[in-house]
Amino acid sequence: MLRLYDYLSSGNGYKVRLLLSQLGLPFERIDLDLDKGETRTPAFLKLNPNGKIPALQLESGEVLPESDAILFYLAEGTPFLPDDRLERARVLQWMFFEQYSHEPNIAVARFWHMHGEMTEEQKALLPEKHEKGYAALSVMESHLADRPFFVAERYTVADIALYAYTHVAPEGGFDLEPYPALRRWLDRVASQPGYIPITQG
Amino acid sequence: MLRLYDYLSSGNGYKVRLLLSQLGLPFERIDLDLDKGETRTPAFLKLNPNGKIPALQLESGEVLPESDAILFYLAEGTPFLPDDRLERARVLQWMFFEQYSHEPNIAVARFWHMHGEMTEEQKALLPEKHEKGYAALSVMESHLADRPFFVAERYTVADIALYAYTHVAPEGGFDLEPYPALRRWLDRVASQPGYIPITQG
Repeated sequence: MLRLYDYLSSGNGYKVRLLLSQLGLPFERIDLDLDKGETRTPAFLKLNPNGKIPALQLESGEVLPESDAILFYLAEGTPFLPDDRLERARVLQWMFFEQYSHEPNIAVARFWHMHGEMTEEQKALLPEKHEKGYAALSVMESHLADRPFFVAERYTVADIALYAYTHVAPEGGFDLEPYPALRRWLDRVASQPGYIPITQG
Repeated sequence: MLRLYDYLSSGNGYKVRLLLSQLGLPFERIDLDLDKGETRTPAFLKLNPNGKIPALQLESGEVLPESDAILFYLAEGTPFLPDDRLERARVLQWMFFEQYSHEPNIAVARFWHMHGEMTEEQKALLPEKHEKGYAALSVMESHLADRPFFVAERYTVADIALYAYTHVAPEGGFDLEPYPALRRWLDRVASQPGYIPITQG
């Protein structure tokens, strides 16, 4: 059986859980507590030397880390990934946008909000996280103004990748009210067959 | 003809230039000066709303941004991208590692070193950039200890993605002397057919 090394409140872990649910693939979930350093133990570093969840252990025993690489791997040959070469590249375009321009701002601000009192350094950096996070949300809003989903007019792993931390952005202090197209897209994703909430392990 | 919106000293732009050279594909290069805000003009934001180079304009007129999505797109069906599903996912794994764990530390430290006097905030953040950048280099060193290239025992776009900012890491204050396997890999990449240096437009 597939085994997912995960952390329940992680949006990166949630991406994989959500796709596995929508593909109807059974899996075993191993929860590692980031606050207790459980992704930095020698045993876990043997599985993923970069010390991060999620990491998916395949039936062969091989371990694949990086949430968006896992999504792409699981989605190949399914309706969640287009066959067209340029559309596949567009899926990757939005995944790299997510990991570079979105997650480091929105997910990190959320993490700081959720994990106890912020340090002085975090408080000093928060305005920049918000500024860059809102810039990413604005790029998404303008793209969604005349499209139902990010790529190929249908629900793909690009939507899963971006949904994960966008729908919980308010937990990082972001106000989604000024983004109506984005809020309609959030509803559209949440109404897909096999949808599960981030709180579901 | 393909048109590449680029900036000569950008490692992200260099990735695409290097692959285009190795594929023997002719292209027109448009240099945008980041220091003069040329990626934030209304004309360029119409091409890439996220306001970043590189962005590749295809013969159809469509524009594909995100360096690693461009590499994947150009490499499909060529020896630079494996056909095997898991090996393709491994290429993406290292590309996402590059954009999340490597570039934001090593490339950003280099950018700060190269673009005039650092601000007080940059000086305060530099030790963390160095710590996280060295952690990424250590992950690469241990992976390369018994492998010639990152994936599938051969030169792929995963190597191009990681080479771009690793080989100029010393310009960001990184010492590569403690990473012998990584230095041998740098030499291996630089000896590939069609190789061009980052200084070549």
